Amino acid sequence: MKMFNKVVIIGTGLIGGSIGAALKNKRLAAKVIGLSRHLKNAALAKKMGAIDSVGKSLAAVKEADLVILATPVDTIIDFALKIHKLIKKECIVIDVGSTKELIVSKLSSIIPNFLGCHPLAGSEKKGILNLETDIFKGSICIITPNRLVNSHTLNKVSLLWRKLGARVVKLAPADHDRILGFTSHLPHLAAFALIDSVPKEYLTFSSSGLKDTTRISASDANLWVEIFLSNRENSLHALSVFQNKLSALKLTIEKRNKKQLIKLLQSARRKREALG
Amino acid sequence: MKMFNKVVIIGTGLIGGSIGAALKNKRLAAKVIGLSRHLKNAALAKKMGAIDSVGKSLAAVKEADLVILATPVDTIIDFALKIHKLIKKECIVIDVGSTKELIVSKLSSIIPNFLGCHPLAGSEKKGILNLETDIFKGSICIITPNRLVNSHTLNKVSLLWRKLGARVVKLAPADHDRILGFTSHLPHLAAFALIDSVPKEYLTFSSSGLKDTTRISASDANLWVEIFLSNRENSLHALSVFQNKLSALKLTIEKRNKKQLIKLLQSARRKREALG
Repeated sequence: MKMFNKVVIIGTGLIGGSIGAALKNKRLAAKVIGLSRHLKNAALAKKMGAIDSVGKSLAAVKEADLVILATPVDTIIDFALKIHKLIKKECIVIDVGSTKELIVSKLSSIIPNFLGCHPLAGSEKKGILNLETDIFKGSICIITPNRLVNSHTLNKVSLLWRKLGARVVKLAPADHDRILGFTSHLPHLAAFALIDSVPKEYLTFSSSGLKDTTRISASDANLWVEIFLSNRENSLHALSVFQNKLSALKLTIEKRNKKQLIKLLQSARRKREALG
Repeated sequence: MKMFNKVVIIGTGLIGGSIGAALKNKRLAAKVIGLSRHLKNAALAKKMGAIDSVGKSLAAVKEADLVILATPVDTIIDFALKIHKLIKKECIVIDVGSTKELIVSKLSSIIPNFLGCHPLAGSEKKGILNLETDIFKGSICIITPNRLVNSHTLNKVSLLWRKLGARVVKLAPADHDRILGFTSHLPHLAAFALIDSVPKEYLTFSSSGLKDTTRISASDANLWVEIFLSNRENSLHALSVFQNKLSALKLTIEKRNKKQLIKLLQSARRKREALG
């Protein structure tokens, strides 16, 4: 017997499609149905083997055992509001959005078997054409239960992520958003501002340092605007901390304070080396 | 006949050693002698095939046709002052430091056949153990002649870099330092400050975005302190531009100005995509 009979994925982009492909490859679902705003995307997901069939409307969720909300963060709540009266009582619903506090508080109050998830996988590339079946292997998936989540949902969803190859880590939704503000949203803000700082005619002289440092600034602008705005306070806080660190660095260079500058760089270096 | 008879490399770290290994592999020099502050490093360079023999003192430059100054930027001028009376009149001297204005102005006035060079190769790893023979293949080498450089030196050094696989680009020393302030020194400052901003206990939740963005913060602190201080004005200028871009981003998030935020991110994204 498969882990799930019918799975519906709403949003067949890079993450939604990769989950579908992994579910099928690992034979965890009898049937995977994909829905997308753009029929073409869902058709492509089917062609690439990420889903078994294309859902025609949200009514596809009716018989589902698992619904995965994999659309941009600003539309997840809208979709949940549209499907929560269509699904079976025992249907498990998860989202894979990059911010959690608002989504979890809304969705857990209207869907009994909801669990917020954030797989730390993906890349600056979006869309089903960048599909990777093994995208979750060796990755971390953060699950963000609140007190409304039941243990059956928690256990089954945790097992699902582990079967997809991820290490599951539990965080409170607010903790998730505060931490990711630093580990994900801040690096994106820095990368966007950094590439924007370099005069166009200087780009010829960029070495691998500039390329690595700004790789994620090639991420989708619309997706990231919604992430920054939906985690506005935490993003702004992380940005302030970063601005203070830059000002401190600047001051030591202005003052030619070599001793302090070495101290700052060595401490940064040690932290980076711990990251592996 | 080889391009050079006797080559002396002062500083057998990653770049000096890689030049030695490439010179030997491509049979461009009859004999490559390496010198290092630490005898052990030079001995290691010999063992790894990067040099033919270890020089016992700076007097090794006496019969050299080419001397390569490959020590940290703050020591290049000192070494030049020590060797310029020992070398043959026709000996070519190059340095491979990351900042050029000060070095070129000093060295071209005391060494008739001097040319400043900056190969845009290397990585956050330092030391001869990270030796790469093909490190210059497909890279850019910036040469920074001033009006004192003769055409024989210019042509011969350019040919050397091309034979090592680099594309040679000519820049005035001041232009080099202004441009690299943005394309290299600023990304390093950003990376150091970024990793320093992330609370240690959050690092477990870092995805590839944070790792890429901060990779170069694992660079050697002492080397980079000297680079920032020797290109102080330009580094500070680039940092100010970056701080302004961050403030602009922050303001749009504070004001929830979605339209302006999308515009900023899209412009950054287009620039990053042009970088390849």
